[in-house]
Amino acid sequence: MTQPQTTTITEQASVATLINVFTVEPEHQRELLNVLITASEEVMRHLPGFVSANLHASTDGTRVVNYAQWENAEAFEAMLGNPAAREHMDRAATLAVQFEPHLYVVESVHHQ
Amino acid sequence: MTQPQTTTITEQASVATLINVFTVEPEHQRELLNVLITASEEVMRHLPGFVSANLHASTDGTRVVNYAQWENAEAFEAMLGNPAAREHMDRAATLAVQFEPHLYVVESVHHQ
Repeated sequence: MTQPQTTTITEQASVATLINVFTVEPEHQRELLNVLITASEEVMRHLPGFVSANLHASTDGTRVVNYAQWENAEAFEAMLGNPAAREHMDRAATLAVQFEPHLYVVESVHHQ
Repeated sequence: MTQPQTTTITEQASVATLINVFTVEPEHQRELLNVLITASEEVMRHLPGFVSANLHASTDGTRVVNYAQWENAEAFEAMLGNPAAREHMDRAATLAVQFEPHLYVVESVHHQ
């Protein structure tokens, strides 16, 4: 990517937000991030209804969070049935101690 | 608030991101959200170094996530010592089954 991408969070957003928290051994954090980066770039972002994936690394080394946005829950669920997406997710799952994906709505946004 | 607020996630962001995942009984999800909304509006957003709080409700009723941004880790840690902030956090803690706060860096952002 030549330019930094920007994701926005707003109260009125109609997106379905997937927050997936991976618990990971610190020695696997980097490899898990690489798997998720590759999955996002090569598969996820080309799927219908994909809006954004935002990968986060905890500073203590024990977590990776994917904060992802889909146009709606159906688009997210359709992704789960995509063989290429599943292949990457299965690889991520083997690197993580556990992972907890949930769909969310943005309830409120607060600024200074 | 008269206007919708917008939070941005970018790779180059210098913010410290706190992602706090609360596990909650579905019958307490609404009350927990209200405690966190009040805390964000009345206390957090007035503290030095606060950037944003973004409250999310899982559609299955079992999680609340606060995706919060601080100017740096020191500002977040100073908040932990603030008595008014602690009072709200203690109330949130009694409503949750568990909560898992971690500090994160934004590793990558992917769009279509």
